[in-house]
This record gives sequence, structure tokens and C-alpha cells, in this order.
Amino acid sequence: MSEHRFSDEEITAIYRAIYERRDMRHFLTDPVDPQVMQRLLAAAHHGPSVGFMQPWRFIRITDSQLRQDIHALVEQERQQTADALNERREEFMRLKVEGVMDCGELLVATLMPQREQYIFGRRTLPEMDLASVACAIQNLWLAARAEGLGVGWVSLFNPEALRQLLRMPEGSQPIAILCVGHVEKFYDEPMLQKENWAERGELNDYVMENGWQEK
Amino acid sequence: MSEHRFSDEEITAIYRAIYERRDMRHFLTDPVDPQVMQRLLAAAHHGPSVGFMQPWRFIRITDSQLRQDIHALVEQERQQTADALNERREEFMRLKVEGVMDCGELLVATLMPQREQYIFGRRTLPEMDLASVACAIQNLWLAARAEGLGVGWVSLFNPEALRQLLRMPEGSQPIAILCVGHVEKFYDEPMLQKENWAERGELNDYVMENGWQEK
Repeated sequence: MSEHRFSDEEITAIYRAIYERRDMRHFLTDPVDPQVMQRLLAAAHHGPSVGFMQPWRFIRITDSQLRQDIHALVEQERQQTADALNERREEFMRLKVEGVMDCGELLVATLMPQREQYIFGRRTLPEMDLASVACAIQNLWLAARAEGLGVGWVSLFNPEALRQLLRMPEGSQPIAILCVGHVEKFYDEPMLQKENWAERGELNDYVMENGWQEK
Repeated sequence: MSEHRFSDEEITAIYRAIYERRDMRHFLTDPVDPQVMQRLLAAAHHGPSVGFMQPWRFIRITDSQLRQDIHALVEQERQQTADALNERREEFMRLKVEGVMDCGELLVATLMPQREQYIFGRRTLPEMDLASVACAIQNLWLAARAEGLGVGWVSLFNPEALRQLLRMPEGSQPIAILCVGHVEKFYDEPMLQKENWAERGELNDYVMENGWQEK
């Protein structure tokens, strides 16, 4: 046992956040306390980043016309995704996939421009910048769950169209539309599992030893 | 205030894990309790994933020759990164960038093959699979911190060479070498900040409103 171990109660709280976090698509329209929002963004900003490059930039959407424009982009991509899904088209169209118009706070998480000058940890794996932003978002997501707020990560959009809508410079890229807000209740299991879209696998099937083994 | 809010103590614990998590490169060689390791992997497996595709596959490295071979790959890339860094070469070479040979547990986090059949949330953003694995790793990282264990994410390697070393199928990709283990102490600030490689920015410089603003 490590001397650096948190207390049993603290450890239980961490696992509770991990296990009760959900990708939410159903929101109440109540506003989010600005102080809570600050804490969530600070949690994101304390995510790990490759070579400590901190490639994340967050854009808060407070303009209601802009929110509608973003929703329109998502809706367009939802239709195109449905078409691409062929035989699962109807099943997909029945799913609620986003809460862009309802959530109390809408954020767009982006990658800053001019990332090519950051080489540490990225010479062979330039995509580690994206991995860093994802870790930052996971911090925000878990903190939000603890604060009683839901988060939904929407990736149904054309990144180039969203980049232009938000007047983002060339070389930058939006990677997530984040719906943040109050919810009536958290799903007791992942919504896509509830809706029979996919099932969580058995952990053992995801862990191998000393090399690849087909399970 | 949300009725779904955790208790104050629980919330404090979540933020403690977020703020005290570090990218560790100094490890003690003590073994990691297998039950703790199971909990960390289960935490990762409860990460969010685009379209619930669960694209992560973890490979535990228990063979000491294999660990040495992985270390050799990292060392090779460390040299190549140093060369690519030009004027920061010597500064980089003085940094400790990995604890592959010392850490109690070595994991390789990978992306499964045949991901192209997953379209939900990935038609325009196929890289969301990588984002999902990064979120899973962040879960493991925070859980490890609570359990008193350090984690270091090493991305200094040639992914194709590591893929072959681990006999991974075409289309799969290793994205992280994860050093997990006991530590003498956690850095009180990010090691790269301690060593003056980079500094944490001010949160306000990372948050914009309704569109891009240069800060």
C-alpha cells in the first residue's frame, strides 16, 4: 500500500465519478453557476499535455444565434451520418444524439494553431495534441459529474464548417462540441447501451499480455 | 445547486486527484498489487467512447526482455527527438523523460484494428477513436493518483516499430507506453515546469467567447 494513497473515502469518490459519469444528451435549460463553470474549465486546464504544450482552447457559446447555427451544423451531419450508416439508418435516427439547444452551457473545445513547432512527444505521434485535449475534457467531465452536472461530447459536425463559423485561424481545429448543464437524471447505464446500440464488453477481452492476442 | 451533486467531501476528492495528478518519470521498482491494477484497468474501461465503440486494447508487459526492447525503442526516439529540437537539444537531453525500466507495471495502450466500420461520431472526425482512448487513460491516471500510484505517458516511440514488436495486427496502433508504479514522491508541480521547459498558462488565456480571439 502506498503512503501517497488517498483516504478510502476519497478513493471511493474518485471511482464514483468514473462509474457514474455519462455522455448526456438530455438536459434541463437551467443556467450553470458561473463559478462552477470556472472550476470545470480550471479542471480541464489541469489536464496532462504532451511536452506540457497545453494545446486546448475553449470557446464558450453565449450568443443564441450562434448556438442555433452550431445546432444546424450538427443536424446536417446527423443526416449525413444516418445515410452513411446504411442498414442502421433508422435505428440511428431514433437515437437522441445531442442536447445542443437545451444545455445550460455550450462549449467548443479546440486545438490551437501552429502546433507543428511542438516536437517533444510528437515527432512520430503528432496526434498526441488531440490526446491531450481529450484528457483535459475528461477532467472537466468527471468534475462536472461530481458537481451534479451532465456533459455530452458531440462530434457530429463538419470541423471545417465549425472552424469558419467561429472565425478560427487556419491550423486550429474544433474537436468537440460540449453540452454542459443540469439534468433531470443521469442515465443509470450508457444511453447507447440502454438503447441497444452497443454493449460494454468484458474487461478481460480488452487486456492482453506481452503482445497481441485475439480474444 | 444540483440535486445530483456529490457531497462536499467527494467533490474535494475529485479535484484533489485532478490537481495532484502528475506525469511521472521517477518510479520505485516495487510491484503493483494486481487487484489495484485490475481496478485501474476497469476505470479505463469505463471511459467514454465515441458511439460506445470502446476502441482501447491494453497490453501488459510482464516479460523483462520485451520491456528492454520497448525501452530501446524509446531511447532511439529520444535521440531523434533531441536532434529534431535543434537549439533545445541539450536542454531536452538533460530531462528525465521516462521511467520504462523502473516502474512496477508497464502497459501499452492501443487502438484496435478495423475501426473504419464505426461511423457514429467519426464520419468527419475519425480521430475520435484516439480521443476515446485518451479519456480512458485519463480515468486510469486519476484513479492511480488516488491509489497512490504514479503514471507516466510516454509517446517517444516509433508506432510502427512498437506495433511489430508486440505482433499487433495491421490497422491497430499503439498510442501510449504507460509507466505505472509506486513513487517516492509526486512532483509538487509538473516536472516540465519545475525544469523550466514550459509554464502553465493563465486559464483566461485559454477561454474565449463566441468565436476566436487572440489573447
